[in-house]
Amino acid sequence: MLVKDLGEFRLIERFRKRILLDSSVIAGSGDDCAVLKFDKKRYQLFTCDMIVENVDFTLKDNPYLIGRKAVAISISDIASCCGLPWYCLISMGMPKNTPVKFVDRIFKGMLDISREYNINIAGGDLSRSGRIVIDVSMLGLVEKKNLTLRSSARTGDCIFVTGELGGSILGKHLRFTPRIKEARFLAKNFKVNAMIDISDGLVQDLRHILKQSKVGAVIYEEFIPLSPKARNLSDALKSGEEFELLFTLPRKEAKRILNKKLVTFKFIGEIVDRKYGFKLINEAGKIKDINLKGNSLTGFTHF
Amino acid sequence: MLVKDLGEFRLIERFRKRILLDSSVIAGSGDDCAVLKFDKKRYQLFTCDMIVENVDFTLKDNPYLIGRKAVAISISDIASCCGLPWYCLISMGMPKNTPVKFVDRIFKGMLDISREYNINIAGGDLSRSGRIVIDVSMLGLVEKKNLTLRSSARTGDCIFVTGELGGSILGKHLRFTPRIKEARFLAKNFKVNAMIDISDGLVQDLRHILKQSKVGAVIYEEFIPLSPKARNLSDALKSGEEFELLFTLPRKEAKRILNKKLVTFKFIGEIVDRKYGFKLINEAGKIKDINLKGNSLTGFTHF
Repeated sequence: MLVKDLGEFRLIERFRKRILLDSSVIAGSGDDCAVLKFDKKRYQLFTCDMIVENVDFTLKDNPYLIGRKAVAISISDIASCCGLPWYCLISMGMPKNTPVKFVDRIFKGMLDISREYNINIAGGDLSRSGRIVIDVSMLGLVEKKNLTLRSSARTGDCIFVTGELGGSILGKHLRFTPRIKEARFLAKNFKVNAMIDISDGLVQDLRHILKQSKVGAVIYEEFIPLSPKARNLSDALKSGEEFELLFTLPRKEAKRILNKKLVTFKFIGEIVDRKYGFKLINEAGKIKDINLKGNSLTGFTHF
Repeated sequence: MLVKDLGEFRLIERFRKRILLDSSVIAGSGDDCAVLKFDKKRYQLFTCDMIVENVDFTLKDNPYLIGRKAVAISISDIASCCGLPWYCLISMGMPKNTPVKFVDRIFKGMLDISREYNINIAGGDLSRSGRIVIDVSMLGLVEKKNLTLRSSARTGDCIFVTGELGGSILGKHLRFTPRIKEARFLAKNFKVNAMIDISDGLVQDLRHILKQSKVGAVIYEEFIPLSPKARNLSDALKSGEEFELLFTLPRKEAKRILNKKLVTFKFIGEIVDRKYGFKLINEAGKIKDINLKGNSLTGFTHF
């Protein structure tokens, strides 16, 4: 059997169940960040993301934006847990014939976004490789009371997203803004239950929340915020690398967001009992069953 | 200009000088681990290492040992700073036609060494890529009083290594034992000034210590412990991926090691004033100048 036959998620699951963790790990593999004991009031967040030439970018892309993206993806993971990033390490493989100018621009992109978010580039590893590959590991902190995991959505929660969806295919994946500011605003003003960043696609990432929270969901087609660059609804539902936040909070909190007219945050649906599964309701009121486990509207997977 | 024209160390230097760090970073890029403020008594250690197919291993190697190596390299970095490892994340890229069985064996190697060293595999990232690439980032802790950096060798120190050198080319690079036990023994019983693990080669890694400590060194050919698998002295001086510890301590401490007949630790030379440079003395007493900066006896470099 080959990894493409097994698929990305089953391959990860195969690994995960064999891992033993000590009690200092609050959340391990399966969330956006590993959550580790730190001090009385805070947890440490630890995450890594690898980007690969010809999968996540091409040599025709602006190298400045490639470097920026490599770091921004991990910042987005920290945002998903409502934390603040602090340190990162950068591992980078490249062919020996890579122009220094190209690497310089990649690094400038990394430097600029790191400064913008007050992140220390504390070290790294440089290696020869056939194609460019960059892995960024990042550390951050979150107050215990603000931590948002995938596993803590509750029946009755309202589901929100930031920004607009479906634009990543036309370049947004290289230019997105990690939603730290929005996550911290939410943490300060609202009680958020569960959060994830949209990296695999709205439907697929919502599935992650539903699976780990053991709940179901209904989302409303008419409320899904389409990017002007999205070609159709399917783009907004399936497009990966949007790096917007997808989160759930109690109805009472949701009302406060709506009353305050905080247009950054868009209501798209509700968390329901698991037995109702995962449904999409269109403007005519027609209900479409989005397979909870399944392959309907699957977003981006590597294998 | 291409990266092969610039070379690995100058490429790293080019990046390093553009990085701004806040005061919570005790040591950043340029040591085996980043050293970060943690609590009153301890620092946090943060390191990453990337291994790449056809550079650090081939598909003909035992996949169990490939996985083991990927994690062991980072453990060795933690050992260099005299710390204990605690958490790691694993980023892995692979072709979609990789057999699941091969990946399973890689992962078993990672699991086993992680358990042996009490390390939590707290998460990771899986990606498609043309060749297998694995990047492990690791967190550890070290008591402030035990931290050993590359930059703290002092004139008059004696230089020691663990184990035997020159065997990596014949397979040791896949089977080495990270020297945590030895590092912790040293920390507990002796005052070590500077330490590094031998990943680029004895001469090259000693150069790192000399450069960062602003000192010179004399090493004695007759004392360099040759692995039975080394073909000649040059193997022992230049062979990378030995992952033995190379460290310096004051003469008084060195005498205690020698008096106790601790055969794990072998005296190989002395730290001298920088103006004397870096010299190798053979058994006939003949002095060979090993260029402090230069290209004489350069070990492994990626570009």
